[in-house]
Amino acid sequence: MKVLVLNGVNLGRLGTRQPEVYGATTHAQLAEHLVETGQGLGLDVEVRQTDSEAKMVGWLHEAAANDWAVVINPAAWSHYSYAIADAVVQVETVVEVHISNVHAREEWRHRLVISPYVLGTIMGLGLGGYDLALAHLASRQ
Amino acid sequence: MKVLVLNGVNLGRLGTRQPEVYGATTHAQLAEHLVETGQGLGLDVEVRQTDSEAKMVGWLHEAAANDWAVVINPAAWSHYSYAIADAVVQVETVVEVHISNVHAREEWRHRLVISPYVLGTIMGLGLGGYDLALAHLASRQ
Amino acid sequence: MKVLVLNGVNLGRLGTRQPEVYGATTHAQLAEHLVETGQGLGLDVEVRQTDSEAKMVGWLHEAAANDWAVVINPAAWSHYSYAIADAVVQVETVVEVHISNVHAREEWRHRLVISPYVLGTIMGLGLGGYDLALAHLASRQ
Amino acid sequence: MKVLVLNGVNLGRLGTRQPEVYGATTHAQLAEHLVETGQGLGLDVEVRQTDSEAKMVGWLHEAAANDWAVVINPAAWSHYSYAIADAVVQVETVVEVHISNVHAREEWRHRLVISPYVLGTIMGLGLGGYDLALAHLASRQ
Amino acid sequence: MKVLVLNGVNLGRLGTRQPEVYGATTHAQLAEHLVETGQGLGLDVEVRQTDSEAKMVGWLHEAAANDWAVVINPAAWSHYSYAIADAVVQVETVVEVHISNVHAREEWRHRLVISPYVLGTIMGLGLGGYDLALAHLASRQ
Amino acid sequence: MKVLVLNGVNLGRLGTRQPEVYGATTHAQLAEHLVETGQGLGLDVEVRQTDSEAKMVGWLHEAAANDWAVVINPAAWSHYSYAIADAVVQVETVVEVHISNVHAREEWRHRLVISPYVLGTIMGLGLGGYDLALAHLASRQ
Amino acid sequence: MKVLVLNGVNLGRLGTRQPEVYGATTHAQLAEHLVETGQGLGLDVEVRQTDSEAKMVGWLHEAAANDWAVVINPAAWSHYSYAIADAVVQVETVVEVHISNVHAREEWRHRLVISPYVLGTIMGLGLGGYDLALAHLASRQ
Amino acid sequence: MKVLVLNGVNLGRLGTRQPEVYGATTHAQLAEHLVETGQGLGLDVEVRQTDSEAKMVGWLHEAAANDWAVVINPAAWSHYSYAIADAVVQVETVVEVHISNVHAREEWRHRLVISPYVLGTIMGLGLGGYDLALAHLASRQ
Amino acid sequence: MKVLVLNGVNLGRLGTRQPEVYGATTHAQLAEHLVETGQGLGLDVEVRQTDSEAKMVGWLHEAAANDWAVVINPAAWSHYSYAIADAVVQVETVVEVHISNVHAREEWRHRLVISPYVLGTIMGLGLGGYDLALAHLASRQ
Amino acid sequence: MKVLVLNGVNLGRLGTRQPEVYGATTHAQLAEHLVETGQGLGLDVEVRQTDSEAKMVGWLHEAAANDWAVVINPAAWSHYSYAIADAVVQVETVVEVHISNVHAREEWRHRLVISPYVLGTIMGLGLGGYDLALAHLASRQ
Amino acid sequence: MKVLVLNGVNLGRLGTRQPEVYGATTHAQLAEHLVETGQGLGLDVEVRQTDSEAKMVGWLHEAAANDWAVVINPAAWSHYSYAIADAVVQVETVVEVHISNVHAREEWRHRLVISPYVLGTIMGLGLGGYDLALAHLASRQ
Amino acid sequence: MKVLVLNGVNLGRLGTRQPEVYGATTHAQLAEHLVETGQGLGLDVEVRQTDSEAKMVGWLHEAAANDWAVVINPAAWSHYSYAIADAVVQVETVVEVHISNVHAREEWRHRLVISPYVLGTIMGLGLGGYDLALAHLASRQ
Repeated sequence: MKVLVLNGVNLGRLGTRQPEVYGATTHAQLAEHLVETGQGLGLDVEVRQTDSEAKMVGWLHEAAANDWAVVINPAAWSHYSYAIADAVVQVETVVEVHISNVHAREEWRHRLVISPYVLGTIMGLGLGGYDLALAHLASRQ
Repeated sequence: MKVLVLNGVNLGRLGTRQPEVYGATTHAQLAEHLVETGQGLGLDVEVRQTDSEAKMVGWLHEAAANDWAVVINPAAWSHYSYAIADAVVQVETVVEVHISNVHAREEWRHRLVISPYVLGTIMGLGLGGYDLALAHLASRQ
Repeated sequence: MKVLVLNGVNLGRLGTRQPEVYGATTHAQLAEHLVETGQGLGLDVEVRQTDSEAKMVGWLHEAAANDWAVVINPAAWSHYSYAIADAVVQVETVVEVHISNVHAREEWRHRLVISPYVLGTIMGLGLGGYDLALAHLASRQ
Repeated sequence: MKVLVLNGVNLGRLGTRQPEVYGATTHAQLAEHLVETGQGLGLDVEVRQTDSEAKMVGWLHEAAANDWAVVINPAAWSHYSYAIADAVVQVETVVEVHISNVHAREEWRHRLVISPYVLGTIMGLGLGGYDLALAHLASRQ
Repeated sequence: MKVLVLNGVNLGRLGTRQPEVYGATTHAQLAEHLVETGQGLGLDVEVRQTDSEAKMVGWLHEAAANDWAVVINPAAWSHYSYAIADAVVQVETVVEVHISNVHAREEWRHRLVISPYVLGTIMGLGLGGYDLALAHLASRQ
Repeated sequence: MKVLVLNGVNLGRLGTRQPEVYGATTHAQLAEHLVETGQGLGLDVEVRQTDSEAKMVGWLHEAAANDWAVVINPAAWSHYSYAIADAVVQVETVVEVHISNVHAREEWRHRLVISPYVLGTIMGLGLGGYDLALAHLASRQ
Repeated sequence: MKVLVLNGVNLGRLGTRQPEVYGATTHAQLAEHLVETGQGLGLDVEVRQTDSEAKMVGWLHEAAANDWAVVINPAAWSHYSYAIADAVVQVETVVEVHISNVHAREEWRHRLVISPYVLGTIMGLGLGGYDLALAHLASRQ
Repeated sequence: MKVLVLNGVNLGRLGTRQPEVYGATTHAQLAEHLVETGQGLGLDVEVRQTDSEAKMVGWLHEAAANDWAVVINPAAWSHYSYAIADAVVQVETVVEVHISNVHAREEWRHRLVISPYVLGTIMGLGLGGYDLALAHLASRQ
Repeated sequence: MKVLVLNGVNLGRLGTRQPEVYGATTHAQLAEHLVETGQGLGLDVEVRQTDSEAKMVGWLHEAAANDWAVVINPAAWSHYSYAIADAVVQVETVVEVHISNVHAREEWRHRLVISPYVLGTIMGLGLGGYDLALAHLASRQ
Repeated sequence: MKVLVLNGVNLGRLGTRQPEVYGATTHAQLAEHLVETGQGLGLDVEVRQTDSEAKMVGWLHEAAANDWAVVINPAAWSHYSYAIADAVVQVETVVEVHISNVHAREEWRHRLVISPYVLGTIMGLGLGGYDLALAHLASRQ
Repeated sequence: MKVLVLNGVNLGRLGTRQPEVYGATTHAQLAEHLVETGQGLGLDVEVRQTDSEAKMVGWLHEAAANDWAVVINPAAWSHYSYAIADAVVQVETVVEVHISNVHAREEWRHRLVISPYVLGTIMGLGLGGYDLALAHLASRQ
Repeated sequence: MKVLVLNGVNLGRLGTRQPEVYGATTHAQLAEHLVETGQGLGLDVEVRQTDSEAKMVGWLHEAAANDWAVVINPAAWSHYSYAIADAVVQVETVVEVHISNVHAREEWRHRLVISPYVLGTIMGLGLGGYDLALAHLASRQ
């Protein structure tokens, strides 16, 4: 099973941005770790990151066209991008991940406009949330 | 009269995406059809599609600078992109089209942030809505 | 195909009422024009106007019983008459028309209680909106 | 005891309108049934139906003037007609009936503007709700 | 100056309906009193009452067409009838009267949908409010 | 048909608690009356009361497992206990009863979180509401 | 009967402040006019103006202690000063006057926190509203 | 590490209750599975279920006192039980699990009153969500 | 005078739970202290604590039946338990105590559903609030 | 310890104003009583009252500068005066007193804008609330 | 150009009040600094401070009458004083200054009722905001 | 000190777009002016403009990585782009500029989602706002 891990806006700064919230691991390290984890689970994992809503939408179209599973962390887009929500609807298997617990932060982070259209959501468990998402996808094979 | 038909985010997947909502015609077929329809009406129609808010804004600037009429389907952006609303304000003649009846769908689709700044809106009449928009523009010549 | 064009409250004053918003054509002129337009499209068009919610509901029942298509401009009722909404539900093919762009006017005109139950809505395109509605119905034959 | 059963807007189409919601019994059959039921309970039942808010208000005035009890199904008016609410206030004994369970339907059907002014409400029990209302009035004699 | 005094729904029951709120004077007595008061002020006063929104709208059209001033008590319609609001817009001089102080009653009576479109409003001063409205119109002659 | 009548929190104090709202009959008297009424209708009625949400949920599970009908008065829980709502969903036939007209009381009593999941609701008709509920269940046999 | 006419904040600038909204008469001229009008009506009128909420409250206490009637124009305080509302409660006869029609202006002017506690309100009739208020008080003598 | 898995109200009916939403596995089977899974992960897992808010609060106190980790599925309590929220605050390590995706269901299920106080939440991944929660706790050892 | 001091959910953990908010005194120490304080004031004080809403409701019934005064700290129930509100209504003399200042904490703690039905509330003054409540009850003897 | 008791707007009318709500004791009597009570508690109590927000703010500044404790009854200002809230923040020890139970009165009295910034609040216990506030301050010495 | 710098409620305590928010400079020092800064810019600057809404309104009237420019920091009044908003409307050139960034503080500080009526607003830049306001006024000369 | 001036969506059309709101200066002219102004202040100013949210986010990352100060005009993004808000958080010194006074325009422009995360905001002072922002940054050196 091919799995796209799609990280959204500002996540390229992982390890640098607010490390007290998001930890010290960089995005490159995360990507490497997830590819390895995927191999252990029999998953063909590819990790991408973008600050462009258009690119994110395009990758979701690509996943839809190829019947790939998706693990998505829409970051700040989670709270307003109906464009990504409409793209997510087209993909059969999507798991949403949030590194921090958005319900414990600002009020506006509690509105989740993409969540109604995913299979499920994992939040607040740090980078480990991605591992769980992959483990779940592997268990569905 | 030159008319730009500007289709927004996710509409490149027409014919593939939720055909029970949006029908089986592809975007290429739609574009071809509208150009032909325009010819019959004495309109110089050009059809573009993008998933990029920036590109959409740029095209609207282009229309404003050249005094072209615009038919726009902002898709999911209809519900939050004030950036596109501010760009639409600059174009004299804009007709908004929605393929589906947004009032019959999720609550969040009822908020239309661009509509206050267009000439008028046609929604729920399928791809035929584009034909009507062109017919209306032709009638204003 | 028989088409009822049903104009709601205050629309009998077309041509007199706020001409800067609704134009100078009278209701009688509009009716005559639509019957002719219908003939050109192969539609049997009948235009009625009433200030009575009860009469409007009755006409919708008549359309439902006879399987006629309806073009309706509910005017101010658009914003509160659930009675007309419930009557509209019973008619298979209803297109809603608004002469002005309600989203560009007072806040209360943005609430559209009948729209979720129609096929589609055309607004802001002046009296031309009726022509488009007929054209659309003709295209569905 | 004289009892007016007053059915509001769109209820004349009972048996025809959305039978999956409202059942297959016509209004005439319902009326006949209720008169008979009333006779069995020692009640003088008269059943009326109107799509006119004015007529409904007038009937309530008639009941107030004659000290009749009322069973009312205000249908869609339940959700906005303060005019009927103000008329209901004038009648001493009013039971409100809804055929369907309005709380299980669209959000706007949950707002009940007449209910604060009636004795009580029976909803969701189909046409049987009218029987219960009559039974209750009989028990109050 | 001709002045139409237009009383809305349920006001025909003045003197009978909730006399603790609306007083013991009947509508006929009020009408007679206002005609006399008008004569004293040099106004040609005509008093009408209806429970029909359609009739009320029609009378406002009549006033608009004849350039008559209007004193209106829209009663319960004050709180939801945008149809009457749209008709009021067409009349140049409209004074709104409420017998009771709606702000001291139920929450829903605080929403006044017609008031933004009248010249001014007099409320809570009992039937005397009508006298003041006439006096004001006379002072504008 | 076995029918559980389930009375919720504070209803054990019937006859003592606010008799001006709830009447002078005690819960024991009500229970005895309902069993007798049931016998007359061919229903096997059992009446229970609890102040414990857990016990109420358990009884609903028992009804679901045994395919019993339920008449429930959730009292104050009506306004917040989604736990009971989720339990009610599991029972095929549930009629909700309220002794008083909750719409005529405090604002917070107007929110009914269980009602969307019952067959129907009877409110404001005093203890007689239970009789009507039983009569309705008997009529469905 | 002694009547205090109490004008609130910013009204000392009458005649100067936004004359298109409030007219060209100065506060001194208004005061003189009202005293005269009062004499004609058999009322002992005293006109005061202040920009101090404390002084306004004190004057209302004075009126309460002396059993004087009050005509009050709370100006901007109408929309937030619960202090003045609490003082108004203590005076038996208070008529509220607004020069402009607050419902036709900004949204925040529609919230009227003092109105529930006065006898009645006259708004939108210009300075003539004060005359009407005095006439009404005279009619109550 | 000792881990309490605490299942809330109505979850004892797993396998029977709405199997299209919650699946066919019973609570006993789930419990057995989680104990085994725990053993594989080096966790001492104990699974409890209750319909009693008091008992749930007590178990959380027990976990707090013994420094146990908790996996909690508060079910319907998620949406209103601030009592459980206050108890959760006292436990250092709590992961919240929801079997279904609450954001794809009724509006009221979107309000999550306990989530701000947990470490993280896993929802919509079926019973597999519990496995992921245990895996995450094991990874924190 | 007999006084029940009723402490609600999570308060059994006083002294252990968030001592920075609630202090270091245990519930047993508080109880002992209040009984002694009561003796000094001539009050027969009994202190109870429960995490069960049902038990709390039952104790309030007991107080109502015996005409005892009540000091209640409903803790988290303050914010949603209408069941306890309905029970409190039945007791003549109830003083509500909150140890912390709920208005200085999370938004949801500002909603107080029981407070409208008590005599008065003391909040934010730590455990000393209980002493004040007792002192107040003694002063009413 | 020096304690300022600061009574806000309209409280100078204690004993006269709505005695059914606020009792028959005058402000002078209250002041005398509190000074005496303070003496018994070893507190140097000074009581002031004003209808001027500016004066109230100044007194709070005085307390802040001198490190005095404050007992404040902001009366109607409680519901909107952020100016006083900002002044209260500067004083270390402030206890807020309300004579009546504001939660049992009009909706707007439930919004308490100063409360988040005080130590604690005592409400609904009549003038006795002041005694309790002093007792509490004495206990903190 | 004469410029009034008007500082509102609590700002007299600058340097003393919450120095972590507002800094250590006193109001006298600020005033002296601004007069000097004004001299450098060719502005005749006068600095005033008051805790009295009435005085603030009066100073704005003075500015309006003399055609002076105003720099205003309404402090807490920014969030509710429509009285000051109405006075500001009368002054042609008003720049609003806030020392702290109100959007980064409590929710209620985000509502700015005076801002719609000023030329512009400078916030969050500390006392330097006043310098910028003066610089801007100088640039407009 | 290096300062990035970042202008958002639609600002490339400065001088052309709605000159009555935004003035006649083009973006190129503004950029040139700001570079010069910066030189006078000892600041190394670089001005960029984009209609792409992704590019804007990237520039903010660049500023964060290089410790540059930022002056940002997010234009329409101010009202919904949490993506930019999250990027702004990462930059230590950000001043937000709006050319027009957004509080004097449409309701939706009053919601400012980026403002809580900047140092301060300057709005409504035209292009001069940029000069002030630079002056402020210079004063912080």
